[in-house]
Amino acid sequence: MDTAFAQRMNAMKPSSIREMLKMTERPDVISFAGGLPAPELFPVENIRAAAERVLGECGARAFQYGVSEGIAPLREQIAAEMSCRRVACAADDILITTGSQQALDLLGKVFIDACDVILTETPTYMAAIQAFQCFQADFRPVATDELGVIPEAVDELAAEGRARFLYVIPNFQNPTGRTLSLERRRQLAEIAAHRNLLIVEDDPYGRLRYRGEHLPPIKSFDESGRVIYLSTFSKTVAPGFRTGWIVASGPMRDKLVIAKQAADLHTSSFDQLVLDRYLRDFDNRQHVERVCAAYGERYAVMDEALRRHMPEGFSWTRPEGGMFLWVSGPPTMNAMAVLAEALAAGVAFVPGADFFPRGGGENHMRLNFSNAGSEVIRDGIARLAAICARVAGN
Amino acid sequence: MDTAFAQRMNAMKPSSIREMLKMTERPDVISFAGGLPAPELFPVENIRAAAERVLGECGARAFQYGVSEGIAPLREQIAAEMSCRRVACAADDILITTGSQQALDLLGKVFIDACDVILTETPTYMAAIQAFQCFQADFRPVATDELGVIPEAVDELAAEGRARFLYVIPNFQNPTGRTLSLERRRQLAEIAAHRNLLIVEDDPYGRLRYRGEHLPPIKSFDESGRVIYLSTFSKTVAPGFRTGWIVASGPMRDKLVIAKQAADLHTSSFDQLVLDRYLRDFDNRQHVERVCAAYGERYAVMDEALRRHMPEGFSWTRPEGGMFLWVSGPPTMNAMAVLAEALAAGVAFVPGADFFPRGGGENHMRLNFSNAGSEVIRDGIARLAAICARVAGN
Repeated sequence: MDTAFAQRMNAMKPSSIREMLKMTERPDVISFAGGLPAPELFPVENIRAAAERVLGECGARAFQYGVSEGIAPLREQIAAEMSCRRVACAADDILITTGSQQALDLLGKVFIDACDVILTETPTYMAAIQAFQCFQADFRPVATDELGVIPEAVDELAAEGRARFLYVIPNFQNPTGRTLSLERRRQLAEIAAHRNLLIVEDDPYGRLRYRGEHLPPIKSFDESGRVIYLSTFSKTVAPGFRTGWIVASGPMRDKLVIAKQAADLHTSSFDQLVLDRYLRDFDNRQHVERVCAAYGERYAVMDEALRRHMPEGFSWTRPEGGMFLWVSGPPTMNAMAVLAEALAAGVAFVPGADFFPRGGGENHMRLNFSNAGSEVIRDGIARLAAICARVAGN
Repeated sequence: MDTAFAQRMNAMKPSSIREMLKMTERPDVISFAGGLPAPELFPVENIRAAAERVLGECGARAFQYGVSEGIAPLREQIAAEMSCRRVACAADDILITTGSQQALDLLGKVFIDACDVILTETPTYMAAIQAFQCFQADFRPVATDELGVIPEAVDELAAEGRARFLYVIPNFQNPTGRTLSLERRRQLAEIAAHRNLLIVEDDPYGRLRYRGEHLPPIKSFDESGRVIYLSTFSKTVAPGFRTGWIVASGPMRDKLVIAKQAADLHTSSFDQLVLDRYLRDFDNRQHVERVCAAYGERYAVMDEALRRHMPEGFSWTRPEGGMFLWVSGPPTMNAMAVLAEALAAGVAFVPGADFFPRGGGENHMRLNFSNAGSEVIRDGIARLAAICARVAGN
């Protein structure tokens, strides 16, 4: 085994989230780990109606091979949705992916050579780290504060000219729940143009806003075609369909389509048709409003329980949407030690270190609040806080 | 743009098959291109019944995130199917992939570093070339005859110790339709053990045998764990589900699961559940028999039409199964020139050169016989043969 191969194998550690998902299949564990949407909110009846209509109307076509870009009617609906998000694009600028995760993989294939520099927020989404690690990316974390990644820090690193792209989650970031300010979005688009820097804007949670106003994507300020925008139906409809999309144009889009061909030919024809039918026959905006109402309440319950139970020295973010909040303990706290005890007490979360591609972050915890009901959240936070008090007190 | 990046972009040409699929959407074109199964044979009614049962019984679970390995009941059914194919394995040795194409991509991710040597048959499946090219593989074509890849040639190249793996399609190979002999399967498994050579055995078509007896896979002779076996439901049920599988054990399996996580988290939950239900509730073996009867007849019609119409100097393979046959013209013939005229006459096929990773093969054509009815096949071959006579006569 040569070195590069061994290195890559080493870089491919199973993500804690995925391993955790297995453990959280135990029904007695209260899970604030994972990033699972609430299944009881899935629009199951309407999806069933859409699926039955597809089965009745499409016949064999629903099960045949299709084109790599994805089916045209669904791409048209996505282009219309993008214009609601203030991004002008055509169906031809949309590439359907097998979940947003595949978009990250395709970006890695097309843009990352071994040792290429990738700029990321600190901390950042662990599965993006994992996807880019497959291509032996060299991560360069960028200074980040409560308003998101700091444009001056991006500009400084971009000026070196070695960065392949900046990866950023502008809305209700994973793991922190933070949102990039409007002014910074504008500034990042300017830096992209000025420094010839590619920006990958990953927006899986943007529609899950339960307080405040939607902010326009970085892509909406992109006049130089240097912003690639990603989103998904995983949080607004259901993740089991594994259907997401990329917005990109011209030669970049063409390269991504070729990478998609090589990756899995195309995303499930049946799933695309069912989603397309569902989106045409039902008002998904209403559904998303219901989801936001429920998640907003769960967030409030978790925030209140944290206020009530967490010991001195702990703070946490106040996201206006999404599925996660980010708890910071005293500098000496080790979240892995907390996790070990928490699991014994039947509570799971993701320790912060997993979100730092170059180490650090041991005193943080990511808590998901979308997947458990209010009573369970209160119970879980009370248990977790008791452990935090004990471990952090050591 | 640095050199490696530019090189990879250059290597990522859109596959002719995929570009061709677009053209063949024109209803007036008789397509012997692509590798489309016959949609009129899809078990649509039974899939519909299975889907309705899943929609009625599984509720939200059908649309939630799942584990990267794939759902356990489907993996159990695949393990049972593998034992019918004389490969002993457990559900834990099965990894569900988003079609067989993804299996190729994952193998590339885990095993191929830039410039690594990959041994292939000559010619070989173009989408495998494309998948491995993404990782900058260095293809080393191995001498091949009518009984498949020649073991002595494999042994010689393996002895150099630089080959990462041998990629081989033992049954009704794509593009030639040829089948690797029993004796050679045994020999390849021995070479794998003796030379510590990994073999990737890709078997999408094996069940589509309409003459002769099934041969045991190379994997059935694999006592050293050096054979990775791939297959798919694309040809035996329907391709639109994008559901295939890998058989591998131990650390190799673990690395493939990690690569799968990074690639798309998991294959569609809904599609996996529908396939699982379909396979439990209906006799897919009977369905495959019907498919074989139809394809066998179509093959015979194409072979007869070729005999009747093709000019001197052309020969073709006589596959005992699968979906393709391979036509060889006089050495001076250029299949691209034939294709240009054929398309003008409303007939499509794939020119042979696409299946040769290091060039050559210009005087070959791959013809698919699974996707058109008998009358259409007769008509298309008559038109194609007239063009061959004209072009080859130049």
